Amino acid sequence: MLVVMQEGATEPQIQAVIDRMVALGFTVHRSTGVVHTVLGGVGPAERVDPADFEVIEGVKEARRIQSPYKLAGRHFCPAGTVVQVGDVDIGGPRVVVMAGPCSVENRDQVMHTAERVARAGARVIRGGAFKPRSSPYTFQGLGEEGLRLLREAADQYHLKVISEVMDHTQIPLVAAYADILQVGARNMQNYNLLREVGRQPKPVLLKRGPAATIEELLLSAEYILSEGNYNVILCERGIRTFETYTRNTMDLAAIPVVKKLSHLPIIADPSHGTGRRDKVLPMARAAVAAGADGLLIEVHCDPDHALSDGAQSLWPEQFEELMAQLRIIAPAVGRSL
Amino acid sequence: MLVVMQEGATEPQIQAVIDRMVALGFTVHRSTGVVHTVLGGVGPAERVDPADFEVIEGVKEARRIQSPYKLAGRHFCPAGTVVQVGDVDIGGPRVVVMAGPCSVENRDQVMHTAERVARAGARVIRGGAFKPRSSPYTFQGLGEEGLRLLREAADQYHLKVISEVMDHTQIPLVAAYADILQVGARNMQNYNLLREVGRQPKPVLLKRGPAATIEELLLSAEYILSEGNYNVILCERGIRTFETYTRNTMDLAAIPVVKKLSHLPIIADPSHGTGRRDKVLPMARAAVAAGADGLLIEVHCDPDHALSDGAQSLWPEQFEELMAQLRIIAPAVGRSL
Amino acid sequence: MLVVMQEGATEPQIQAVIDRMVALGFTVHRSTGVVHTVLGGVGPAERVDPADFEVIEGVKEARRIQSPYKLAGRHFCPAGTVVQVGDVDIGGPRVVVMAGPCSVENRDQVMHTAERVARAGARVIRGGAFKPRSSPYTFQGLGEEGLRLLREAADQYHLKVISEVMDHTQIPLVAAYADILQVGARNMQNYNLLREVGRQPKPVLLKRGPAATIEELLLSAEYILSEGNYNVILCERGIRTFETYTRNTMDLAAIPVVKKLSHLPIIADPSHGTGRRDKVLPMARAAVAAGADGLLIEVHCDPDHALSDGAQSLWPEQFEELMAQLRIIAPAVGRSL
Amino acid sequence: MLVVMQEGATEPQIQAVIDRMVALGFTVHRSTGVVHTVLGGVGPAERVDPADFEVIEGVKEARRIQSPYKLAGRHFCPAGTVVQVGDVDIGGPRVVVMAGPCSVENRDQVMHTAERVARAGARVIRGGAFKPRSSPYTFQGLGEEGLRLLREAADQYHLKVISEVMDHTQIPLVAAYADILQVGARNMQNYNLLREVGRQPKPVLLKRGPAATIEELLLSAEYILSEGNYNVILCERGIRTFETYTRNTMDLAAIPVVKKLSHLPIIADPSHGTGRRDKVLPMARAAVAAGADGLLIEVHCDPDHALSDGAQSLWPEQFEELMAQLRIIAPAVGRSL
Repeated sequence: MLVVMQEGATEPQIQAVIDRMVALGFTVHRSTGVVHTVLGGVGPAERVDPADFEVIEGVKEARRIQSPYKLAGRHFCPAGTVVQVGDVDIGGPRVVVMAGPCSVENRDQVMHTAERVARAGARVIRGGAFKPRSSPYTFQGLGEEGLRLLREAADQYHLKVISEVMDHTQIPLVAAYADILQVGARNMQNYNLLREVGRQPKPVLLKRGPAATIEELLLSAEYILSEGNYNVILCERGIRTFETYTRNTMDLAAIPVVKKLSHLPIIADPSHGTGRRDKVLPMARAAVAAGADGLLIEVHCDPDHALSDGAQSLWPEQFEELMAQLRIIAPAVGRSL
Repeated sequence: MLVVMQEGATEPQIQAVIDRMVALGFTVHRSTGVVHTVLGGVGPAERVDPADFEVIEGVKEARRIQSPYKLAGRHFCPAGTVVQVGDVDIGGPRVVVMAGPCSVENRDQVMHTAERVARAGARVIRGGAFKPRSSPYTFQGLGEEGLRLLREAADQYHLKVISEVMDHTQIPLVAAYADILQVGARNMQNYNLLREVGRQPKPVLLKRGPAATIEELLLSAEYILSEGNYNVILCERGIRTFETYTRNTMDLAAIPVVKKLSHLPIIADPSHGTGRRDKVLPMARAAVAAGADGLLIEVHCDPDHALSDGAQSLWPEQFEELMAQLRIIAPAVGRSL
Repeated sequence: MLVVMQEGATEPQIQAVIDRMVALGFTVHRSTGVVHTVLGGVGPAERVDPADFEVIEGVKEARRIQSPYKLAGRHFCPAGTVVQVGDVDIGGPRVVVMAGPCSVENRDQVMHTAERVARAGARVIRGGAFKPRSSPYTFQGLGEEGLRLLREAADQYHLKVISEVMDHTQIPLVAAYADILQVGARNMQNYNLLREVGRQPKPVLLKRGPAATIEELLLSAEYILSEGNYNVILCERGIRTFETYTRNTMDLAAIPVVKKLSHLPIIADPSHGTGRRDKVLPMARAAVAAGADGLLIEVHCDPDHALSDGAQSLWPEQFEELMAQLRIIAPAVGRSL
Repeated sequence: MLVVMQEGATEPQIQAVIDRMVALGFTVHRSTGVVHTVLGGVGPAERVDPADFEVIEGVKEARRIQSPYKLAGRHFCPAGTVVQVGDVDIGGPRVVVMAGPCSVENRDQVMHTAERVARAGARVIRGGAFKPRSSPYTFQGLGEEGLRLLREAADQYHLKVISEVMDHTQIPLVAAYADILQVGARNMQNYNLLREVGRQPKPVLLKRGPAATIEELLLSAEYILSEGNYNVILCERGIRTFETYTRNTMDLAAIPVVKKLSHLPIIADPSHGTGRRDKVLPMARAAVAAGADGLLIEVHCDPDHALSDGAQSLWPEQFEELMAQLRIIAPAVGRSL
């Protein structure tokens, strides 16, 4: 913890801060400058809120020195984590593409879409069985039947399955069918859910919340890691900004930033990140060029009749075109598809 | 649904959009302008995503005409809803102040704080029994024991109790002790939770998410209302912006905006909205001046030793000073305290 | 300058940073913690960008200890600055209301509006002679004739005049008629303009840019102060956020924050801050309740026929109602109108 | 103009809106739905603010149908504009890279940097002669001498010159040396400057402001085009968001969005967009993969001793590495370097 005193802070004010730090268990190191006195505290920083010091008389600002996350930090695994899902490595030399419909709607839709994405080079099929929708009047998902269909399609086309868990009570059900459990953007700070997916062994894909900083994303990953599950994949899917032309603003710089701060793999979701089919291709290419370990893309065999998110789902032909483009781009960052 | 065609859209493009609208169940009304053709569709707008039209060739933009919420709209109850919690009316002529510690820590803390806030004029005691914390290494709450202490303190000092439900499995437990169930900002779009609090009879306080628009807040309220629970109180607690000096940026204009769009009462939480004790008083005064129906304020009998959010908790003396100031301001908006 | 080294930074990496700091003129103070080494540098911090250190191998983060502004800091004038404009004190015990039309349109409009706002208690008349408009096809202002009309109206009704300078070449012209020169939000970082208004003696109202942090606002004020003009009034007028229901999001917490960080007076502009007439009253009341030293409000004798910003201009009757409400609220913060 | 009446709007309310529209010169088309009445107005929409209707009693919302820009719209030049700067085509099949130091510091620096970037494949040299700095205490640029050095270096290495004009009084001076005039992000809505660069013949690079929407960027371009200068190049350089790890958040989706809405070429500036050297390469690659027509990149022969923006300037070796990567990526979007 570093506490910077205001210009002109009095000796009793400085002493009061030192006393408080000592009471909290810090060893305090004082550095008196021409203008500002700085107090450095070594100790239980992660349990103390810097704001607690900032409201003390005479304090200009306080901040943590240590990152509030440890297990998610790069230092914990300098070589980088590769999450293994059967024979699919996420975070390794190959860019892993996960594709499929927003929601599972029926057997034909899943099988047809699976066949197309598998043939084009996807390694994982995605699909929602439980759909969180912002309006209570829209399609809410097929439930377990949807999971069963995903599994069947995946097995037939040699794919892995990723599907979302909406809350901690759904974990056993989803884990019975899926290879990777997805924690959605709106649940990024649902700590009960984070803790429970940390207590089971399947890999977890954790999406960045639309108002979450990169540090908060890593802190949410820390929740999962701290329960013993180290197979966490991060996902950038756009943040909320004043620009409303696209649904969200994809923060692709988060990819190299996460690579520097953390050892965990990070993929991108340009479908939710843009909300418009014609923006998915450019942003998918950009994400791979920026160093993403993979992509999560909505593809539907008939997007015009999709029950959800049709506007952002690619036609299978578009997905094939994208995969061809990615095969050109990946070598620029030392990867293959 | 209104669909505006691009300048120079061709007749086949226009016809394709009309066909799509008809197939979805809309009655279409065409208006051909000098530059743009506009298609107005009357029909099942709330189940159709405007984005589905925006990806069709030749379309400039599409948007809903109807609000996606109905029960939460002003038109549903033009006189405004008053939520009754025993003898406490929220949304009526009196500004209702809810105050208490961030977390319940022990009996002394709760009883002492309750006594002070009750004497100063608060009508409801707040306090968390389950604490969602962004770091997994910090205090996580007392659980049921905390709820029991809140109830005891409230009964002794003639207060009502508000406490947060973290997920749908906690509803029976919290509802057994609290008079108002709080849905936190991070759960504003946890639809399973919204639905379940809508299926029980206790009033619900719904906090605006840090990245949620006013329309999305009302849509989340709609989830609760649509299950039959009409006793919903909204709460502005700050949104996330580029300004990081305060923890969040309170959007006080949301108060008059909600008053225009909806019949539901709206209160403000300047403690979470600012994150700093010395900013709570100015923003609490401002919220009442802007027309808020109430306030939710963190007060702690000893903030320096609070186990959570000490920096934003008022000293009891500050709370008394605030209440005196609010008694001056409230008449300017035709209210009392 | 504080430089925090990464966990596991090597001794040569640390030494390289120290060498760089010394080369830049810093005296370096090293503090070796269990996990992190921290280097504190006393020296020419305001001329060195912390980012220069953050790109050095082994550095976790770097930041300034000293505020990058000095003359604008609270410490420079702890009692607070009162800007005197003739017999009008801005920053003193009276809340100063500046009101008038967005643009000066013609003599009748100005005289009529001036009479109404003066009678209701405004002390300063506002009005634009040169209008920056986001579309090139709209009304661009009356120019010098507009300034002359403002002066005439002000003199007749014992008001002061505030008007905007669009760039540094307009300063002599505007200063010939106005008592306060306004620097608009879009010009907050037009450093040539800031420097030139700093070299003339009339008070300057500096508006916060829609994407500017509070620190950047104070840094822009520093430009003016550093040229010798200490009569600077700051103005909060809303920042840009994802919420688009109102034109901007007023950051009223900026008022108490500025009061803590700086000695300069700060007023609020709820007309531009909300963009809608029916939101101006609540936000004007809220700003005074939050501690603003004054208000800048658009009032038009006939808003329905205003040539610009009619939707956010108050009717004179609404302005009178507002002034009556403010007379109730001001005493809550120890002020009068 | 489309005006949507509220549910339950009365006939007199509807008639009042129609009267107002007619008085403003609109031909009104009324469409009465089950729930909402919609009024479509054909007429002088670009001179009328939709907000003027939204404050009328009974109105739910109002919006323009036509884009407020015309000359900048795709429809004006469906094939896309190619800006020719001598033998350099911007917007054509080749991706154009503009590179050079943030500020011109001295002859050696410019000549050395020019030689390196030219050899690596840059076609245009960039460099600031007048530096807008957020602190008044930092290096402010060499002025005309800087422009002279840029010209000399460009002529020697067969490059074109781009340099920034800080305000309209500098245009003649900068235009005497530079081939492209740059309007900086902070000046994106400096309408006097926009108008004056529109009245001279040299191509203009217009940077998006940090708080500007894509529509506002196009509207600023319209100012230039409407004065007769059609050689406008747009530039995405990051917007301001809550994520502060990078200086700005690059909105790369703006590239395909601008390509759809406008015929003007658009390039990206990953140096200002990220503020950190190690993030420039990933984001430069990503921009080209997203379809950018070019890049604007800071390169310095000795970034550690740069007088400004050293942290975001590439080493010449990094620039060479980047160019090699871009040569792999460009074919994926049908381009070359």
